[in-house]
Amino acid sequence: MSSFATADSATRISQGDAITAEDIQNTGAVATGDAATYAMMLGDDALILAQRLGWWISRAPEMEEDIALGNIALDLVGHARFLYSYAGTAWDKTEDDLAYFRDEEEFRSSRLVEQENGDFGHTIARQLLFANYQLLLYRALCASTDETLAAIAAKAVKEVEYHVDHAIQWTLRLGLGTEESNRRMAEGLANMWPYLGEIFEDLPVHERLAATGAGVLPSGLRAGFDERITHILQESGLEIPTAPQARSGQRTGCFSEYRGFILAEMQSLARRHPGATW
Amino acid sequence: MSSFATADSATRISQGDAITAEDIQNTGAVATGDAATYAMMLGDDALILAQRLGWWISRAPEMEEDIALGNIALDLVGHARFLYSYAGTAWDKTEDDLAYFRDEEEFRSSRLVEQENGDFGHTIARQLLFANYQLLLYRALCASTDETLAAIAAKAVKEVEYHVDHAIQWTLRLGLGTEESNRRMAEGLANMWPYLGEIFEDLPVHERLAATGAGVLPSGLRAGFDERITHILQESGLEIPTAPQARSGQRTGCFSEYRGFILAEMQSLARRHPGATW
Repeated sequence: MSSFATADSATRISQGDAITAEDIQNTGAVATGDAATYAMMLGDDALILAQRLGWWISRAPEMEEDIALGNIALDLVGHARFLYSYAGTAWDKTEDDLAYFRDEEEFRSSRLVEQENGDFGHTIARQLLFANYQLLLYRALCASTDETLAAIAAKAVKEVEYHVDHAIQWTLRLGLGTEESNRRMAEGLANMWPYLGEIFEDLPVHERLAATGAGVLPSGLRAGFDERITHILQESGLEIPTAPQARSGQRTGCFSEYRGFILAEMQSLARRHPGATW
Repeated sequence: MSSFATADSATRISQGDAITAEDIQNTGAVATGDAATYAMMLGDDALILAQRLGWWISRAPEMEEDIALGNIALDLVGHARFLYSYAGTAWDKTEDDLAYFRDEEEFRSSRLVEQENGDFGHTIARQLLFANYQLLLYRALCASTDETLAAIAAKAVKEVEYHVDHAIQWTLRLGLGTEESNRRMAEGLANMWPYLGEIFEDLPVHERLAATGAGVLPSGLRAGFDERITHILQESGLEIPTAPQARSGQRTGCFSEYRGFILAEMQSLARRHPGATW
């Protein structure tokens, strides 16, 4: 059942492409506590962003875009399933336990993904920033010494490449469109910018995992990110925002005012009726 | 570009499978007024139901179910795109014109798809009834003398087969689960039942299209539908509801109180900023 590569395999990435959430439960791999916390953090970002993006189905400016944003949302739910499944091996929890039965202070999502959809320009700004960060992160994580994290990253990175491309196309279209579309995209970027610092912040769990080669130091991704974003914004007739960074919540007790609302909607059914078996 | 079969092709169904919304614009086929109205009605049902189902992404009782309902929603947006694209050929309109720039009294959706998601049991009841109706409708429409409608139906029917299977699996699970899950599924069915009559009602446009072999008489699908549903409910330990039928709105001026809210959300962005080019 498992298609995970062994440590000495040179084809880890292509093999990783074939994994499913069930595979992760079936490999018998058990995450270390740190790897589980890390996987859970990554899963939280993916799931919260998926909920935000799913809202656009039937509400986007074009029907084609309904489909595009809906597909991105479903990709992200898929990534969250992998990540939660693996995190759960450390604590004997299922993906659903982690998605639906943690309280808001137990979530580790970044405030960037929690930001409201707002205007379409805001949504695209959030996508541009987060998908580029995620691309660099997953690319680096493909080389993780933790085989399961490497396999999940290898699977996810191919989809995130598409998310990045989608965000860039819209950034160009809005940035180079009309004065009004440029203004709205710039406003979206200015609104999302304060939450960038947090996603590149090294927490103790990152430092411990980076030391063993299992995880990626977020701070190490920043230079490559800045280079990419600077280039994209230049091409799009947009400027790097000057908005100051928000104080970091360190992804713990201090989170955006939106998280509670997001989780209330996300969890209410599963909590009232676990497994919907009633 | 077009992969539509010619009138004498015996492989219409497999060829139809390859169509895209762009293909429809590129065939040069122009819908008759009646075929356009009919395609628009079918598209309205698909799009409204897609919006309802898309809400479940991240809110379903299981993460696997987030993905399943999200995929069904995206399938339905895809069907609506085909149907609107074809309808638009009669009136020189795009799919987006029809989705975002008609007022609520111009929509022709059935009240069944407009019903609220409610409890998960309500959503599954709506899916069971609507997907089974749609399956029989699209199967019959594969033999339409209107080549484009036949091709769209052939493409859609394969996805709707999955939607039916999904609804049946949940109906069995809830019906045969606990006393509480059975009660909730029964309640969902009772709530949706009054709106069944409307989808099987023959309007003048159906009669005119059926006379030329281009369309399907809804009333002719009812016996097969009843047989299927009776069998599924029996297998699931559920009974045929005795709820009386709601007065039909004939899919015109009389619609559910929900339609306005659904459209307000669906259309606001496109209307404020046509093409999101601002």
